[in-house]
Formats: sequence, structure tokens, C-alpha cells
Amino acid sequence: MRLLEFLKLSRRPPSAETAKQRLQVIIAHERTAGPAYDFLPLLQRELLEVIRKYVEVDPNKVKVDIDKGESISVLEVNIELPPGLPRSQLV
Amino acid sequence: MRLLEFLKLSRRPPSAETAKQRLQVIIAHERTAGPAYDFLPLLQRELLEVIRKYVEVDPNKVKVDIDKGESISVLEVNIELPPGLPRSQLV
Repeated sequence: MRLLEFLKLSRRPPSAETAKQRLQVIIAHERTAGPAYDFLPLLQRELLEVIRKYVEVDPNKVKVDIDKGESISVLEVNIELPPGLPRSQLV
Repeated sequence: MRLLEFLKLSRRPPSAETAKQRLQVIIAHERTAGPAYDFLPLLQRELLEVIRKYVEVDPNKVKVDIDKGESISVLEVNIELPPGLPRSQLV
């Protein structure tokens, strides 16, 4: 199954209330050999800063999940976007 | 199925040759209502810059895929990481 299909299937059908725009950032760090370092917390904060350069991000509309497996850790950030155009198109 | 399971299942079993560390960044932009703007190219370049602050990234070891669906577009960046610790732990 392609990633696009998985992401589509894992979404609730948009009701009128949830019919918005959403950004989902997923970072998977796979460590199969050698020293393992926890990379995800480093990236999490900076990624949000990058996204904030383009869109207003309401901290209450940001959901962060970290799932740590033996050989793979996954950081998932779900952001509900405001309607309208990103900052860069406004300037 | 949880995202962590999907990501594990979608990986080839690590042979000795491929037993390295890998970073996978996925950005899904879901547009259900209102004006749609293509957000992903904006983020792609900057995300790599953020990652480069922490780890040496060999451009030949970066694979970028964009998959555009009707209501959801997905950017997938796969980076094979060098062995050893990230920059931040070296300074």
C-alpha cells in the first residue's frame, strides 16, 4: 500500500465542522546499527518554526505524538491550518 | 493500524549492506475546503536545511517523492544518515 493511501484511510471523513486544511508532519528515525541518538526532539521544535514562517500556527491546534519502537521512532505533528493563503503569498 | 506499524511493514528487512540509520520525513497537506495552495515545495528545502544543522547530509543519499491526490498531497524525503553522532553532540 502506498503512503498516500494509508494516510487517506487513516483519516476520519471530513464533516462540515472538520472540513478544514491540515498539515501532518511525520519523522521516522530508523536505527539499525551503530550508536543510537534521539534525533526527534531536536527536530520537533525547529520544524514548527519553519512551518510558522509560512502559516499562522495556533498552539492549541498543534498535536504532537512520539512513538518509540525498538529500531524505529516516529514523531507525528498534526497542525490544523487557518483558512486562507500562507504568509509568503501575502507579502 | 498505527503509523509506526505501517512504517515498519513498508521497510525492506535491513541486510548487512543496508544496516544503517535512516531518517524519513513525510509531510501530508490535506485540503478539504477553501483556497488550496501548494505548501510542500516551500517546506521541502527548508526542512532539509533544518536537518543539515544536526547531521551531515549527502545529497546523493536524499530521495524526494511528491504524491498529489485530490484532497491530500504527500511529500516524502528519505535520508540515509551517516554513522556516528549528530553535529550538536559533537560541539
